[in-house]
Amino acid sequence: MVRVTVWGENVHERTEEHVRAIYPDGMHAAIAAGLDEVLGGAVQVRTATLQEPEHGLTATVLDDTDVLTWWGHAAHDEVDDVVVERVQDAVLGGMGLLVLHSGHYAKIFRRLLGTSCSLRWRNEGERELVWTVDPAHPIAAGVPHPIVIEAQEMYGEHFDIPAPDELVFVSSFSGGEVFRGGCCFHRGRGRIFYFSPGDQDYPVYHHPAVRRVLANAVLWAAPGAGGHGGAADSPNAPRGWFEA
Amino acid sequence: MVRVTVWGENVHERTEEHVRAIYPDGMHAAIAAGLDEVLGGAVQVRTATLQEPEHGLTATVLDDTDVLTWWGHAAHDEVDDVVVERVQDAVLGGMGLLVLHSGHYAKIFRRLLGTSCSLRWRNEGERELVWTVDPAHPIAAGVPHPIVIEAQEMYGEHFDIPAPDELVFVSSFSGGEVFRGGCCFHRGRGRIFYFSPGDQDYPVYHHPAVRRVLANAVLWAAPGAGGHGGAADSPNAPRGWFEA
Amino acid sequence: MVRVTVWGENVHERTEEHVRAIYPDGMHAAIAAGLDEVLGGAVQVRTATLQEPEHGLTATVLDDTDVLTWWGHAAHDEVDDVVVERVQDAVLGGMGLLVLHSGHYAKIFRRLLGTSCSLRWRNEGERELVWTVDPAHPIAAGVPHPIVIEAQEMYGEHFDIPAPDELVFVSSFSGGEVFRGGCCFHRGRGRIFYFSPGDQDYPVYHHPAVRRVLANAVLWAAPGAGGHGGAADSPNAPRGWFEA
Amino acid sequence: MVRVTVWGENVHERTEEHVRAIYPDGMHAAIAAGLDEVLGGAVQVRTATLQEPEHGLTATVLDDTDVLTWWGHAAHDEVDDVVVERVQDAVLGGMGLLVLHSGHYAKIFRRLLGTSCSLRWRNEGERELVWTVDPAHPIAAGVPHPIVIEAQEMYGEHFDIPAPDELVFVSSFSGGEVFRGGCCFHRGRGRIFYFSPGDQDYPVYHHPAVRRVLANAVLWAAPGAGGHGGAADSPNAPRGWFEA
Repeated sequence: MVRVTVWGENVHERTEEHVRAIYPDGMHAAIAAGLDEVLGGAVQVRTATLQEPEHGLTATVLDDTDVLTWWGHAAHDEVDDVVVERVQDAVLGGMGLLVLHSGHYAKIFRRLLGTSCSLRWRNEGERELVWTVDPAHPIAAGVPHPIVIEAQEMYGEHFDIPAPDELVFVSSFSGGEVFRGGCCFHRGRGRIFYFSPGDQDYPVYHHPAVRRVLANAVLWAAPGAGGHGGAADSPNAPRGWFEA
Repeated sequence: MVRVTVWGENVHERTEEHVRAIYPDGMHAAIAAGLDEVLGGAVQVRTATLQEPEHGLTATVLDDTDVLTWWGHAAHDEVDDVVVERVQDAVLGGMGLLVLHSGHYAKIFRRLLGTSCSLRWRNEGERELVWTVDPAHPIAAGVPHPIVIEAQEMYGEHFDIPAPDELVFVSSFSGGEVFRGGCCFHRGRGRIFYFSPGDQDYPVYHHPAVRRVLANAVLWAAPGAGGHGGAADSPNAPRGWFEA
Repeated sequence: MVRVTVWGENVHERTEEHVRAIYPDGMHAAIAAGLDEVLGGAVQVRTATLQEPEHGLTATVLDDTDVLTWWGHAAHDEVDDVVVERVQDAVLGGMGLLVLHSGHYAKIFRRLLGTSCSLRWRNEGERELVWTVDPAHPIAAGVPHPIVIEAQEMYGEHFDIPAPDELVFVSSFSGGEVFRGGCCFHRGRGRIFYFSPGDQDYPVYHHPAVRRVLANAVLWAAPGAGGHGGAADSPNAPRGWFEA
Repeated sequence: MVRVTVWGENVHERTEEHVRAIYPDGMHAAIAAGLDEVLGGAVQVRTATLQEPEHGLTATVLDDTDVLTWWGHAAHDEVDDVVVERVQDAVLGGMGLLVLHSGHYAKIFRRLLGTSCSLRWRNEGERELVWTVDPAHPIAAGVPHPIVIEAQEMYGEHFDIPAPDELVFVSSFSGGEVFRGGCCFHRGRGRIFYFSPGDQDYPVYHHPAVRRVLANAVLWAAPGAGGHGGAADSPNAPRGWFEA
């Protein structure tokens, strides 16, 4: 049973009618529903939002979370640095993290990657095609090639990220741009997956193939047994300290 | 149930008494027993050797194999190129492959990697320490840090391989050398793991931690569901050929 | 002074009039002229073709070559395995290699990479846009973003290669496909660059930005000083063999 | 002419006599002298220290710096966050960065990498051997295999960093530990090299091979011409915005 916390900024949904029309209970609710739909009893999903105390991400919640998903856009700056640091520590300790769409500019993503995470964009409802470039990757399992998303915001290169540890998907847009929109990173003991499809203006989180990708990514990012050797705080190691 | 075929060159064991003393039924038998011991009912293990027709690696056997392990040393040249090509095709199609110790010079390994796979060596029974450099990797699960192997052949850098897709273990030896002895490669849809501990002159395949590594690697290398997008033979793709 | 050998299969140019109209002296001549044009006195360029004895790639020629470029399509099978092995050894020893367009299926490329190197394709003269995804890479220096190629054969994913050590360019096509068309690989001491634009049916090798990419790649792939540590044939290493 | 700024924390040298005996003008002076010694007229070297206003790293200084080297240990916390952010921006914009030894815990390194950068250590003056695992890498040019450092602090795995983009050196120590001590990272347009040899208690920065490595790394990290495509701040991109 993978314990998932779906975090939503929850601003557009409350302030813009056309977004509410697509996501009446918020984007986080749609994302959570998608995980439930695809994974059923294999996951236990809860949601948390910016507006809750500590943004709903207390130490207790994080301790109880295997994989956290993150959607933000309008209010990145309102996320408390204390919470960001807490999430970073959790990821380095092994919690999985899915960063979605405009979350590329979230404090947590920039802090984990170290780069500006900037990109090019255009919001004209273009068709996005999401191509699998690593067909044996578990996140690509059962995903159409390509995923066809009729209307999306364009995200284009250059995307200022470190070279991904695994590149799974590359998108093209009607206007001709390309984007490395499905990227895996390993940081500390944690697995991070960035997935670009998913703007508030389009019903992308109702798209079955997008739901499938997110479900696959949750399973991929969930912490496994792992091995010895991690050291949180640079211990002095006398000769023969060897761990059994 | 992961179907494993343990392939052994089976020359030293038949021609050298001190090897037979350590591996009375051959190294392949010890490797197979180790997988059974650790994984029990999760695997179905059979063995095959150089001396069998088609080296025991007929198309039928490979079709029925999820993960193949390969140990060779004295007779790399006697492996039929037809079988090598068959194994390569199977790996590219998704079969996992574990290449062990002196298998670094096996035709199949060099063909999949494209480099000379040369290294430095010295056989003086030195202590090898196997350190985990990627503690969250599933192949490192439950593995001591370091693995202490009292007596081993030294393998040292430079090891002429492509940069591994994932580097899991690095060894040191009493004489001071280091070696990237636990390396993952992805080729086609297949996963390849090279693990250096394991000479015919030492009882390395009876070592519980080595057995644990091999068992972990079998589970890691077993083919998963995977996605669309693989194309064996460069098909012409008319506009709108998109796969569902 | 970088010594370049431009190798051309030289079949289409001799047998198809519309190709000869674009490349009257052969594609290899156009590629060589492009390198001269961009790099002037910094390179010394010669050409070699399939039809010459040993395909023009004698041991003497390779010894005298810093970077080899390879274009082939119709006659991959006619390339002698002895020559392929000689080129492979030269690359592992440090010679740079540029593999162009349909060269993805050349014996030398498949042998160095170990995978099928298959892809999807469609020849309808579509517009190709070549996007830089690694803007600090020397091969991208002075290259427009994107390169606009009015008419090209489409090459699309999945491209069955190992994950590139460095991914520099990704293309999109009018039909919507994407392709990892600018990929760096390191094998042995050699640097390999694959660049997909360049079909015989289109004047791609006259395109100034394509010429710039190839010139940059020649400079990037040329062997540098390098360090110790390479070992061609697995020497026995007594204690204290250390190199100065 | 590569413009180098050698930054030193400059605390141990002023407060501990045995360090001053080894580095009478500070470790930064020894590092700077080493670069001058190896590279002569090819570099212009200046130094800066923690104690100067803005730690000597004003915007003007950084604008005038191609490569910055960083040594710190006792006073990481005293480095002003404003300066750290300024250095990070400079690196993402293309400035090279060499992080040395205990600088693994410097704010700038952790911020660029996103991980804890913790490791194991023991200060008993053990012999360190630095092995080249990527002999064709320019940073390994002319470097002995291995570098023998008679007395050093031990740094051991697990080193909690992202997988390096290029792994150049791996060390072993008398006590048996190994360490990925020569690692390259690409972040934004900048190149980062971490090199572990170099404690304040030992004359490591007078060692000719260590000086050679640092000189090679300065040349490697210096910004080149580069290409288009970088975007500092996510510009809106109307259809047809293409850059020439």
